[in-house]
Order: sequence, then C-alpha cells, then structure tokens
Amino acid sequence: MNFRLVLNMLGKILLIMAALMLLPAVVSVCSGGTDLLAILASAAITAAVGGGMLLLKPKDTTFFAKEGFVVVALAWVVMSLLGALPFMFGGVFTNYMDAVFETASGFTTTGATVLSGGISAIPHGIGFWRCFIIFIGGMGVLVFVMAVLPLSKERSMYLMRAEVPGPSVGKLVAKAKDTALILYSIYFALMVLMAVMLLFGGMNVYEAFTTALSTAGTGGFMVYDAGFIGLSPYLQTVTTVFMLLFAVNFNLYYYILMRRIGDVTHNEELRWFLGVIAFSVITIAFDIRNLYGGVGHALRYSFFQVTSIISTTGFATADFNLWPEYSKFLLVLLMFVGGCAGSTAGGLKLSRVMLLFKSCTIEVKKMLRPRCVENVRLDGKPVDGQTVYNALTYFTFYIIILLIAGLIVSLDGLDFTTNFTAALSCLSNVGPGLSLVGPTGSFAIFSPLSKIVLMICMLLGRLEIFPMLV
Amino acid sequence: MNFRLVLNMLGKILLIMAALMLLPAVVSVCSGGTDLLAILASAAITAAVGGGMLLLKPKDTTFFAKEGFVVVALAWVVMSLLGALPFMFGGVFTNYMDAVFETASGFTTTGATVLSGGISAIPHGIGFWRCFIIFIGGMGVLVFVMAVLPLSKERSMYLMRAEVPGPSVGKLVAKAKDTALILYSIYFALMVLMAVMLLFGGMNVYEAFTTALSTAGTGGFMVYDAGFIGLSPYLQTVTTVFMLLFAVNFNLYYYILMRRIGDVTHNEELRWFLGVIAFSVITIAFDIRNLYGGVGHALRYSFFQVTSIISTTGFATADFNLWPEYSKFLLVLLMFVGGCAGSTAGGLKLSRVMLLFKSCTIEVKKMLRPRCVENVRLDGKPVDGQTVYNALTYFTFYIIILLIAGLIVSLDGLDFTTNFTAALSCLSNVGPGLSLVGPTGSFAIFSPLSKIVLMICMLLGRLEIFPMLV
Repeated sequence: MNFRLVLNMLGKILLIMAALMLLPAVVSVCSGGTDLLAILASAAITAAVGGGMLLLKPKDTTFFAKEGFVVVALAWVVMSLLGALPFMFGGVFTNYMDAVFETASGFTTTGATVLSGGISAIPHGIGFWRCFIIFIGGMGVLVFVMAVLPLSKERSMYLMRAEVPGPSVGKLVAKAKDTALILYSIYFALMVLMAVMLLFGGMNVYEAFTTALSTAGTGGFMVYDAGFIGLSPYLQTVTTVFMLLFAVNFNLYYYILMRRIGDVTHNEELRWFLGVIAFSVITIAFDIRNLYGGVGHALRYSFFQVTSIISTTGFATADFNLWPEYSKFLLVLLMFVGGCAGSTAGGLKLSRVMLLFKSCTIEVKKMLRPRCVENVRLDGKPVDGQTVYNALTYFTFYIIILLIAGLIVSLDGLDFTTNFTAALSCLSNVGPGLSLVGPTGSFAIFSPLSKIVLMICMLLGRLEIFPMLV
Repeated sequence: MNFRLVLNMLGKILLIMAALMLLPAVVSVCSGGTDLLAILASAAITAAVGGGMLLLKPKDTTFFAKEGFVVVALAWVVMSLLGALPFMFGGVFTNYMDAVFETASGFTTTGATVLSGGISAIPHGIGFWRCFIIFIGGMGVLVFVMAVLPLSKERSMYLMRAEVPGPSVGKLVAKAKDTALILYSIYFALMVLMAVMLLFGGMNVYEAFTTALSTAGTGGFMVYDAGFIGLSPYLQTVTTVFMLLFAVNFNLYYYILMRRIGDVTHNEELRWFLGVIAFSVITIAFDIRNLYGGVGHALRYSFFQVTSIISTTGFATADFNLWPEYSKFLLVLLMFVGGCAGSTAGGLKLSRVMLLFKSCTIEVKKMLRPRCVENVRLDGKPVDGQTVYNALTYFTFYIIILLIAGLIVSLDGLDFTTNFTAALSCLSNVGPGLSLVGPTGSFAIFSPLSKIVLMICMLLGRLEIFPMLV
C-alpha cells in the first residue's frame, strides 16, 4: 500500500473542498447572513488539514486498485468529518455526531436528516452548503477530482471503477477524464435548467438553487421544514420531471447530443425504468384515490412519490407513511430498485435488477432442460458470466448488510418497520423510510451506535459497497 | 412432456396417501373418536382419484428432469387438496380454502395455522392426521415414494434433485433408493425415541406421538391450544434437543452409525450451525433477562425459541412477539437461515448461507487484488463455481419471491411487519412470524388471495423454489 500517495491525493481533495466552501461563503455575503465566519473558519481548517497532508511527498506514484479503493473510501470519511464543521460553527448542531451524520447523509446523496425542525431558520450560507454537498456527492467526488487533476489514464480508470455507480463502467470517449468532463457538464446544465424553471414557479434564487442542487444529486434536503408538502402543483411537477431525468443514465443525454437517438430508444434499462414507474404510479394512484378526492390528484401525488423514491431523492408531497399498506410496501420495493446505472440515483440500480431477474429466469429454464445454453442478454447483446455473477454477489452483499445493520439498529428498541426501512433507506441513499423514519420523522431518534451503522450503510450504498469494506 | 407417465406416478402417490390415511383411522378407533367415518371417506375418495389416474397407462417410460419437477410440484398440490378432506368431513373447517391451507402448511412442514382455538377439542384421528402429514412432508414425499416404488436409478436421481433440500444431493451409498431407505429409518427411529422420552415427561400416547411427528418434520403443529406455553421444563428441554437433532444433516447420523466420527467433527456446516445457535441463544437470553427473572430461565426460553426458529419448527414456549426488538430481529434473521442441508428444516439452509458469506468475502479480496484466484472452500475442499453460482441465484430468487409475496399480501391492509414476516415465515416453512402472525396469532386474518400466495410460498420454500415455477 502506497500510503504517501494516498495521503497526497486526500490532501488535494481537501484543498478542493476548502475552495468549494467559498461558494457558500459568497451566498452568506449576498444574503447578509450571520454565518460567514463559521464557513470561512471551516474552509481554513479544511485547507490546513489538506495542506498538511501534501507536505508528505510520495516517493513513487505506483497506483493500483487497492490504492484507488482506499482513496475513495477515506475521501468520503474525511470529507464528512470536515464538511460537518460549518454546521457546528454555525450552531445548527450542538452534537458533532449529528453534524457528521447530516454531512455524510448529504455527500452520499441520502438526504436522511437528524433535524426535526427549524430548517428554514438556518442561515443561507450554511443552508446552501447543506444542499451543495449533495450536488458534489451526486456525481462522485472522485469523478470531479479526475476532471480537474492531471491523472494518468490508468489511474483514472481505477478511480472510476471504485466510484461510478452501476454494474459496469461505460466509457463514452476514449479518455476517462473527457468522459467525466462531459458527464459533469450535462449534470451542471440540467441543474441550472431546473433552478430557472423553479424560479418561474415563484421560488426565490436561494430556494430554487438549493432545491435544484438537492434534486440533481438525488439527495432530498430541502430548505423548508415541510419539504414539498404545500408547494404548488407547478413546482411539484417540475421537480417530478427532473427527479426522473436525474435518475436516467447520463450517457443517454450524451447520445442525444450526438444525435444517436437509436441508442436511446433501444436502451432496455430505460424501457424497464419507465415500465416500473408506470406500473407503480398507476397502482398506487388507485390505492390512494380516496385520500385525495379523485384519481387526478391521486395520480399527481403518486407520480411525485414514486419518482422521488425510485430516483432515491426522498422528497415528499404527502406523508406517505399514512398511505395504505400496498402503497407503502411498493415504495419499499422501489427503495431496493433505485434508478438507472450511470445516474446520480442510489439503490441496486435497475440494470442490476434486470440482470438478477433474467439470470433467475434462465436458471429455471436450465433446471428443466439441462442442455439449455441460453445466456443473459442486455440490449440484445449477451452479457458475460462475470457481470451476472457480480450482480448476484452484489445483491447478496446488499441484503446481508441490510439485515445485519437492521439487527444492530434494533438494539435501540424501535419497531421492526423503522429498523428495517431505516437501514434500507440509508443503504439505498433514499432518505426517508416508514414508521418513525417516515417523511415527517427524523433520524435524531437513533442512538450514536445506530447513527454510525446507518452512516456506514450510506457510504457502502453510495460507493456500491466494495471500497468501504477494505 | 410425458403426461401419461406423470399422471401414472401421481396416481401411485395418491394410493399410498390413501393407505397412510388408515393410520389416523386406527387412532380414531383406539380413542373411540367420532371421526372414523370422515377419515375413511377421505381415504376412499383419495384412493378413487388415484386409481382413476392409474387407468391411463403410460405408452413409454421416458422420464427427464422436466417430468421429475412436474411430478413433484403436482404431487404436493394434489396431496394438499385431498389431504384437506378429513378436516372438512370432520367439521374442523367449514371453509375448504382454510382446510387446504392447513394441509399445505402441514405437508410443507411450515406449521402456520388458520385455527385460532379449539385445537385440543379436535377428535384424535384428525388431530393425529394433522401432525402426521408434517412427518410425511418432512423427509419429502418423493423420497418416500422412491423407497417404496421400483424406480430406475436415473429416475430416482431426477426426483431426488427436485426435492431433497440443500445445495447438492449427497449420496451415502451407490443407489439413491438405498440412501432414501437409510435416511427414512434414521428419521423414524429418532421420532420414536423422542415420543418415548415425552411419555416419560407425563404426556399421554396421543400427545407424545403427535408432538414427536410434528417435531421430526420441523413443522410445529401442536394438539394443545397454547402450544408449549406452560409445559414442564423437562418436556421443553427434550423438545429443544430434538428440534436441534432434526435440523442437522441426516448424513451425519449415518456417519455416526458407520463410526466415521471424523466426518462428523470436521463438518463445517455443523460447526457454523452450533456457532450461530450459541451466539443467538446467549445474546437473546441477555436481551430478555428481565422478562423471566434471571439469566437461568431466560437461557431456557432463549434456547428453546432459537432452536425452534432456526430448525423452522415454529413451536413457542413464550409469546416472543412481546420480546425486545433485538431478539425479534434476530429471530427474523434465523428464519432466513434455517437448518442444515439434508435435514427436514426449511429456510435457505446453513450451507448455502455459508457459501454466500464466503463468496462475498472472496469477491472483496478480488476487487482489491485483481490477480487473486482464491476459491470458495467448504469442509476444506474447493467448491465448484456452479454450486456457488446456484446458491447466489437461489438467494436472489428467495428475496425476490419474498418481496413480491409481501407486496400482494399487503393488499389486505395489515401492517408491514405482519406482511413481511408472514411471507418470510411461509417461504422458510417456519410457521409463526411477528406482529399479527406471532405465536399467539393466526393466519385466518388473511384474505383468500393472500392465503393462496402464502401457500405458494410454502411450496416454493419446501421444494426449494425451482420445481414450482414450471
């Protein structure tokens, strides 16, 4: 293990984070907030720690898969520890553990909050930072670093493999760095477009941009205490559409830009994704039709909630914890599924779920006809055995971690539904769960041990489990 | 598909079942019960249906994997439909669906009941039948058939593969038929031994044998309304020990008989099994220590309940639904695990869980060192890739079916914990779950649709899923 190189890269990442903290400082100045000093102090400390790490020069630049995983895993831990400083200095939290939980929840785009009120009273600089970390975490810190730092092609691939969501890394163009730049540009452009459309709906600049940042990273933090409950149908609809867009494989946008429309319409994952959403929206709307006076309104509520959960954003226009049991159970299933590979969404990713379904189907066929040699196919092309095997192992890992995390959290004595859905929601980076961690609940109810376990779940889920287990 | 041969084999199975119904008829005569006519009528109808199926002679005896699966799957369905007749004719149920549910629950050794009282008032002939079907289902109807009917060696293997629990079929001796006979003899001897020990504890002959039959099949039906609650510590301890014995791979008993002690002490699955039980018993005893006035009593309750759940028997000496959340969550995990392969227990089977854990561990190692070529090992020997792959697929299937079943059951509007644990408990052939289907609850609360779904879960779980999906 090349520790000096790992430290060196962590140092660079922290310096970038310190620089990023200047953006909320600007927001603080513009809004005449009281939080400027808190933010600047945090930036200074982060820069000092990062600078200190750079003092130790690496002797050689040997960089393998192991180093890649360690850098990625440690980066998220260190960033959560230091990113929590503005919340502490600004007095939003008095408990450092809670501040770190909120930060880790942001960076991992989970959006599970330990705040149970007073969110709209947070000074705008810190409020902006809370949503901005979701945006940073959304595309992956390391992809960002890759787009900025001069890295060898091989080194970039190691980082990509450790961090980009989905069963396989699809390269759009020959150089990983160029791919990262293209994806980040699309990400940024969509976020700005959404903010502008929210402005048209009557939000002010602060509200529009924090909401857009939070949606882009499929995180789910809001600057209103009640979240989306009570906002206009226009704002809800715009957000629904953008949650959907951010849960789609970003490669598809690149194809659209390149006028390769065929690659979009023939994308099997996209068709499954829309199919799952259509099924869920219609059946849930039917299930809740009596709660909202008619199918029309029920459809809007259902569409918003289904998109919010499958994209793992976690916004809510209603307290779905009060919905009928079928709707709740289906939302839990969608927490497992998550968005498309190559998006900012969490969960298992739809393409993995497709691989799981298909390999199970084929296994049944093989049991019946031992000579059957059918292979799993995706987009019409056969998928190699290793990819299927990895998807199966990943799923097994996912369930094992979910159950062990749920067991530890159950030591707090809360009910089964709370424990199970809290662990699932954190592992899938959704945010809210059911029962006590429903959309109106808060993760403040958990003990420090449970909070640590749930943070580990968030990181394992965001980094797709493997890097964190080193 | 050779339908005539399938029908022919089903006919033979039904004739055997009709003959088996004469045993409860004898019990009815001995106890001077009012249910003799009901049982004899059921036997006559079963014999008539079976005989009718035999009229159609098969043209050829071509028999492949496909036919094997169809015979096994249909046998369980037909046996549940006809095995329910004594309950209907005897007036235990007025609803045929409930009678079929109870029968399927017995044959699959689940032990989930739709009776919510009056169990001790059931005439002894029918009461005996209710526990006897668990014993029949325990070792697998087809293994029994195989031991009785003259079948070719190849045909036997097809049936074995379709029905014997666990990731692989271990043959003790060269001929599958001889293996079946040996296993059945051990099974029968242990059952009788248990009944005798229960007799010493003050049970009468009827109580002792029904309890022993139910324990041997790891089913969990009892002839008392309160189950094991209130029975003497001696009876509880004897039952605990036998539940444990019936959840162990039966091959080990054969090894003991052959004085191959090394094969027993080096059995990795057995060591894991005892380890999991020890961990669960101790931590649960600590968790419930205040409920039962001291660690000593808590240990006895904990030992009984842990063994009952991991062996998927489902007896209860206490309403564990009232236990603290950690204990409940751990019991749910044990419902997933189940007993050892080659036992009468349900669940995933411990050897599969071991394969899952090990393949996940190795996958992490491979991510770090791409050149790592380590293989999954069991009992010190490398396991071939296909077996690991099958375990992963099986687990994936298990979870997918669990979640889909839970979703459909949730249409009844009961709480999440009830829906989830009811589906899990049926799929793992345990019996009780948590919340409304806890040890004092009843499956009578479910709608007909849910009952059908849960019955399918029982059959999929008992037949290890694949045959039922044909």
